[in-house]
Amino acid sequence: MFYHDKRTQYKVRVEKPNPAFARMLQQAIGGIEGEMRVCMQYLFQAWNSRGPVKYRDMLLDTGTEEIAHIEMLATAVALNLEGAPLTVQEAAIQQDGVVGAVLGGMNPRAFLSGGLGALAVDAEGVPFSGAYVVSSGNILGDMYTNVAAESTGRVLATRLWELTDDPGMKDMLAFLIARDTMHQQQWLSVIEELGGHKALPIPNSFPQAKENQHFNYAFVSPNIDGTGTPEGRWTHGPSLDGKGEFKVLKAEPYGDEPKLGPPVPEGHAQKEQMTLTDSLIGNIKDTLG
Amino acid sequence: MFYHDKRTQYKVRVEKPNPAFARMLQQAIGGIEGEMRVCMQYLFQAWNSRGPVKYRDMLLDTGTEEIAHIEMLATAVALNLEGAPLTVQEAAIQQDGVVGAVLGGMNPRAFLSGGLGALAVDAEGVPFSGAYVVSSGNILGDMYTNVAAESTGRVLATRLWELTDDPGMKDMLAFLIARDTMHQQQWLSVIEELGGHKALPIPNSFPQAKENQHFNYAFVSPNIDGTGTPEGRWTHGPSLDGKGEFKVLKAEPYGDEPKLGPPVPEGHAQKEQMTLTDSLIGNIKDTLG
Amino acid sequence: MFYHDKRTQYKVRVEKPNPAFARMLQQAIGGIEGEMRVCMQYLFQAWNSRGPVKYRDMLLDTGTEEIAHIEMLATAVALNLEGAPLTVQEAAIQQDGVVGAVLGGMNPRAFLSGGLGALAVDAEGVPFSGAYVVSSGNILGDMYTNVAAESTGRVLATRLWELTDDPGMKDMLAFLIARDTMHQQQWLSVIEELGGHKALPIPNSFPQAKENQHFNYAFVSPNIDGTGTPEGRWTHGPSLDGKGEFKVLKAEPYGDEPKLGPPVPEGHAQKEQMTLTDSLIGNIKDTLG
Amino acid sequence: MFYHDKRTQYKVRVEKPNPAFARMLQQAIGGIEGEMRVCMQYLFQAWNSRGPVKYRDMLLDTGTEEIAHIEMLATAVALNLEGAPLTVQEAAIQQDGVVGAVLGGMNPRAFLSGGLGALAVDAEGVPFSGAYVVSSGNILGDMYTNVAAESTGRVLATRLWELTDDPGMKDMLAFLIARDTMHQQQWLSVIEELGGHKALPIPNSFPQAKENQHFNYAFVSPNIDGTGTPEGRWTHGPSLDGKGEFKVLKAEPYGDEPKLGPPVPEGHAQKEQMTLTDSLIGNIKDTLG
Amino acid sequence: MFYHDKRTQYKVRVEKPNPAFARMLQQAIGGIEGEMRVCMQYLFQAWNSRGPVKYRDMLLDTGTEEIAHIEMLATAVALNLEGAPLTVQEAAIQQDGVVGAVLGGMNPRAFLSGGLGALAVDAEGVPFSGAYVVSSGNILGDMYTNVAAESTGRVLATRLWELTDDPGMKDMLAFLIARDTMHQQQWLSVIEELGGHKALPIPNSFPQAKENQHFNYAFVSPNIDGTGTPEGRWTHGPSLDGKGEFKVLKAEPYGDEPKLGPPVPEGHAQKEQMTLTDSLIGNIKDTLG
Amino acid sequence: MFYHDKRTQYKVRVEKPNPAFARMLQQAIGGIEGEMRVCMQYLFQAWNSRGPVKYRDMLLDTGTEEIAHIEMLATAVALNLEGAPLTVQEAAIQQDGVVGAVLGGMNPRAFLSGGLGALAVDAEGVPFSGAYVVSSGNILGDMYTNVAAESTGRVLATRLWELTDDPGMKDMLAFLIARDTMHQQQWLSVIEELGGHKALPIPNSFPQAKENQHFNYAFVSPNIDGTGTPEGRWTHGPSLDGKGEFKVLKAEPYGDEPKLGPPVPEGHAQKEQMTLTDSLIGNIKDTLG
Repeated sequence: MFYHDKRTQYKVRVEKPNPAFARMLQQAIGGIEGEMRVCMQYLFQAWNSRGPVKYRDMLLDTGTEEIAHIEMLATAVALNLEGAPLTVQEAAIQQDGVVGAVLGGMNPRAFLSGGLGALAVDAEGVPFSGAYVVSSGNILGDMYTNVAAESTGRVLATRLWELTDDPGMKDMLAFLIARDTMHQQQWLSVIEELGGHKALPIPNSFPQAKENQHFNYAFVSPNIDGTGTPEGRWTHGPSLDGKGEFKVLKAEPYGDEPKLGPPVPEGHAQKEQMTLTDSLIGNIKDTLG
Repeated sequence: MFYHDKRTQYKVRVEKPNPAFARMLQQAIGGIEGEMRVCMQYLFQAWNSRGPVKYRDMLLDTGTEEIAHIEMLATAVALNLEGAPLTVQEAAIQQDGVVGAVLGGMNPRAFLSGGLGALAVDAEGVPFSGAYVVSSGNILGDMYTNVAAESTGRVLATRLWELTDDPGMKDMLAFLIARDTMHQQQWLSVIEELGGHKALPIPNSFPQAKENQHFNYAFVSPNIDGTGTPEGRWTHGPSLDGKGEFKVLKAEPYGDEPKLGPPVPEGHAQKEQMTLTDSLIGNIKDTLG
Repeated sequence: MFYHDKRTQYKVRVEKPNPAFARMLQQAIGGIEGEMRVCMQYLFQAWNSRGPVKYRDMLLDTGTEEIAHIEMLATAVALNLEGAPLTVQEAAIQQDGVVGAVLGGMNPRAFLSGGLGALAVDAEGVPFSGAYVVSSGNILGDMYTNVAAESTGRVLATRLWELTDDPGMKDMLAFLIARDTMHQQQWLSVIEELGGHKALPIPNSFPQAKENQHFNYAFVSPNIDGTGTPEGRWTHGPSLDGKGEFKVLKAEPYGDEPKLGPPVPEGHAQKEQMTLTDSLIGNIKDTLG
Repeated sequence: MFYHDKRTQYKVRVEKPNPAFARMLQQAIGGIEGEMRVCMQYLFQAWNSRGPVKYRDMLLDTGTEEIAHIEMLATAVALNLEGAPLTVQEAAIQQDGVVGAVLGGMNPRAFLSGGLGALAVDAEGVPFSGAYVVSSGNILGDMYTNVAAESTGRVLATRLWELTDDPGMKDMLAFLIARDTMHQQQWLSVIEELGGHKALPIPNSFPQAKENQHFNYAFVSPNIDGTGTPEGRWTHGPSLDGKGEFKVLKAEPYGDEPKLGPPVPEGHAQKEQMTLTDSLIGNIKDTLG
Repeated sequence: MFYHDKRTQYKVRVEKPNPAFARMLQQAIGGIEGEMRVCMQYLFQAWNSRGPVKYRDMLLDTGTEEIAHIEMLATAVALNLEGAPLTVQEAAIQQDGVVGAVLGGMNPRAFLSGGLGALAVDAEGVPFSGAYVVSSGNILGDMYTNVAAESTGRVLATRLWELTDDPGMKDMLAFLIARDTMHQQQWLSVIEELGGHKALPIPNSFPQAKENQHFNYAFVSPNIDGTGTPEGRWTHGPSLDGKGEFKVLKAEPYGDEPKLGPPVPEGHAQKEQMTLTDSLIGNIKDTLG
Repeated sequence: MFYHDKRTQYKVRVEKPNPAFARMLQQAIGGIEGEMRVCMQYLFQAWNSRGPVKYRDMLLDTGTEEIAHIEMLATAVALNLEGAPLTVQEAAIQQDGVVGAVLGGMNPRAFLSGGLGALAVDAEGVPFSGAYVVSSGNILGDMYTNVAAESTGRVLATRLWELTDDPGMKDMLAFLIARDTMHQQQWLSVIEELGGHKALPIPNSFPQAKENQHFNYAFVSPNIDGTGTPEGRWTHGPSLDGKGEFKVLKAEPYGDEPKLGPPVPEGHAQKEQMTLTDSLIGNIKDTLG
């Protein structure tokens, strides 16, 4: 279960409110790289956790920390919205070009639906989706998903850092960027503990002898312009997991042209799909002239 | 640009059609771990690729291969739907319990909207979403996202393999599982080429001195039940990137209680939110008795 | 900021796992009446709160409690999924009709995507949406939205209670139903404190003299079958807020037929939409014969 | 069944078209507080209505009126879009700053997809969702949901009223604001008729003795910063429904730490999740150094 | 504006309620081929209509009729849900196999969220989306979209007709199928009036001389397996609009390999994407061995 | 299966990058009229194709071509984003009004999530949805859906052509517009081959004698303002399919007022919905005064 403290995990100061920046911050709240996603993802992974309990506990710790990050960002959005221009009138825009520009850069629902507050949406106003929350039941599948989330999350936070010159916002983002650094380390540490590259492929509990042995360490190139694919770590030499040897295969079909049965009567395709009658043939011939 | 061959990349055979399995296969088409996602993800990453061109070419190769995987799965769905029971009548169900069970296990839109064909949806009928497609512009952020997709994707494929005993389907899945093995290797190989753990944190182009130095290698534990978090690779010792030393911090607030300004008049909050008038106080006192 | 205790707020026991019931419980996690919605709704309302601080504190308290409810339900889902049948084979279904029935009643992604765990989706597998989270900036607008959420939420919980006879699940639901009782009381208490019906209409800060005085206490009936609308509290007598007198108006148009301008050239409508040329008229005449 | 009159329910006049205001109006069409939602919500509640028929008739009346409100708003959007700048060229923007500002404030799909017409989306371009439509089968649950919709709906309408100084638009909005006033009254009147606070908790048909008696009138505070929650109507005294006495409980866990079973083999977790083998322990020890 | 009659447009009778059929009917309510879509589509097209007013009037007529079709279907769903089994208990299922089967075939939210009523969702429980509503501003673009909707809509209705043997439901569907027949005729009649094939291409107001003259009547085949594409009406002979001659082109690239600039510093790609430094080259060489 | 060539199908040149135009182009990538939709639609139709194989092959050809169109547009987006202003600071905006305007016109996620690259979203940032992909199993249903997609698609492309004066972009769009011309022709040619109007109604395999004979060629007018619907091709004369005679019917109800049963106890409606007790009547009387 959970408790709260009325204070925030880290200082949230805005010296000069900027509604266009409020919109940008929304991406870090409700976007696929945002804090609602990692918060729910770590908590669901903890709640569904089967296996060594220490990873469950760790996920609970960091999932709980992320609620505090949503709180900081929501507060930052509300503070950046203070003083936002509340007009769409041409007169106001002509008088002050910045009003128009800021207006264009604002998220209209921040005012219309939120009364100058944060919403559970991304920078485009697209609502957060529970589909972003991955909890696969395979701990390494989950850990790589978490590394991915923290990597794109830290990229986002550094871009936000570049967009603002407000000292309070830069300070808050420097904190969040630091946390993303650590969280990348955390999930990768679990991967190391559980074997690193030796734990591949994921899942390692599926007997690898059952997978197709011709294609499991082969780079397939369907390129046909004659210039090919330059070599890389993945084109030759031992595989990273030490279980195979990389090779390159030119793409080619191993299957046939698919043949589906005719439509069932109850599906009510066109009659012509069911039987190629003489009249259809005649009709097609007529049409072709 | 792109070309096609009418044959499939690998054999798609169904010996005993099973509409409930068709529904399961839809997860591998339109789900967040599915082939539409990786196909579009690798292609968008290629099209947006800035930097060394060889990674662009490799992404194009594998993105193109994934179109062929959607094709194989869609064909498998259509073949598994042949002979599906097309009734919801109790009489039929009472006569044959399997009819009812299969009916319950079917995706109704496979017949209603698809005429016994595949749709661009997952196993629950939720449409594929372009939001799943990540192309961040940071190559390692993208690569970890790709490893995550292929990890949860291979977990899904092995679960599908367990659910069926149709030899044709098992053979096709054994091929797809092998490809997921290789694709995990591929994206991890790029990470190795570009520095592996030494390339952390992602993005490595943000000057790390700008991030908060107190929190960037600290595990924060907001647990308060007194039993703490067991130690792990992430609680002490040098960090994976060799740039810090792990430590543990008990969670505590570094910020204050947030204070937002009063509502703006144009936002039409309740009057009582704007001024705590005497009458409100009286009213509240009355209500409290 | 937030803390956690590894124990749950209330006991979560499942005596006889039931995967079909796991699916039903998902509605209380990711549905529009579910706990993710109220959790996020109360927290966003708190974070955006402008006006008397005590309501902010109360929202934080209850928003934090709701995280613990998601946790209990996610745990209940995972426990109900233990022992679920993992096959779609006809043979198994023919052998045991219950297998087939349960299979039809299961959420396929619980296994395919979650490895027998909870997901951030509703009972149909539709992902939770941030669009459900309402935080309007008007405290009474928010409070009525909260009452609505707890009313449909308690209705859902009592339906779940009817669907199960597992003593552990009934006990857990009896706890959640009790909490919904209290939460209905809480939000209505705020409404009472702030004036009850006297605080209407919402928002009360908009000068009511500006609204159309002919229509603000009139029930409009667009019914034309001659049997009319039976009378009720809303058809005559003083209005609930004491500011008007109810009346009934037969629906009739006060506006004209709308007239839009012709299409702009850059919008590329069909030519015939832009000018009703002679040739069009001729063409139409020809077609009409 | 339904009929129409070509005239609108109320006058829709736009003296000075403003494409940025057209975008704002979209929130009142396709947003969660908008007219498509209340229209469909009242109609579905009517069509699903079980119990006293007069509420069904009333819902039909008002649901039908709301179609006319969508019509008015869609017309207003189309009229506001007339004369919108149709360029994204820098030259045009440099020549006339207002062009650029308006452009930034426009919804691009209004032109691209609608040819300067209204769409079934909100102010951010997010499509209307059927998930907003609540019809619970419990009449008070539905009525509170309707009050909530009309409350946030009227807040939205008053914000729109503030954003414009077009006399035609202000007049139309003054009409819609008046209708929201009445509709709040209507749904609250039904609640009064059916018992008001005495009808609580919702649903009142669930035997209240079955809910947990320790928690049903207790305010739970998970706050731990020592400053507590200020008292309110909900912390002591008789409950609003007269069936209990309010009290305050400090949050504490009544449950245990959850224990899930090990992963099933078919779910293909990592091997290390299934058995904590000696080699894993060795591996973890090595990694920890 | 709009009016209603309490009676339905056509009889809605259900002799033997069937909850699994209720789920199927939901596709005709909230699906992309369903009545909510065509209803809103015709009404938005009417409200946005620019050009000859008679098409506006006709769209209003048929859009209004479609509201009555949603009403009939919602009523049919509610009637089919009466008597649905309300348990997920194994005991009940073992006792009566049909209970289990029906349960599997039911939409769980029909009970959980709707109290045995219709919802604004499709047969999979996916909410209706405003994105389905097309109103392009080009009358022929709209008309073809309408023909498409009525074509897939009639296909759906005939499939529903096959799934049931309830005389009431078959009678209602026979009515709806007839209306779809007429509506296909209606929209095609508008196309005929406005020129039929001679009105192509859509939009016909774009000067066709501006489009690329080499590709506008050429069938492009990117097939490379040597078996080619069989000939059809579209491979040779005069084009349907009489403005060109069909031909076949083998697909080939007319463009170059795309070259994007390097990443901007503020975007924080990995350093290695910005400059291919010696150390990267060394690193890559090391990794490749 | 599929292959690729690193070159694009047609030249993609941008002389003067314009981030606001990049946003507009996104509609042609991820919008309902966009290339992701037609690409997936033609490919799923091909993969699900039952009946004459030549239409399958043709769909594969054009579906494959459309992948190349997504590629061209994604490349155009990335090129238009080069040099985009990366600030939301007022100072920068005051210095250069164009910066502000462009900023308002940009899609913020193009930078935040994409690092100045294309995303799988529309011009409003709404993600592409698999729900747009129609593959009905009825070939004419599919063909009319394809004509509709290419018609609204070409309308979109001509609007984009108007919005830009960049010669490279105009040239690329002139190519895409030409392809849309041909694709309209293609799908209409299939319709002609299969019978044109004589193949109506769709589906033609449903025995037309089963549909209601009173309503299948009748235009129904629910208009009540006395001005009626002007006559058109659809109001009298022989129907387009030659199988009926058009007529006009004034809308009137053929059904009764629906009567649903009382709520089931397990659904927990309010008590007052289940039995109209004396106390309720008394209560209502009291409330009405």
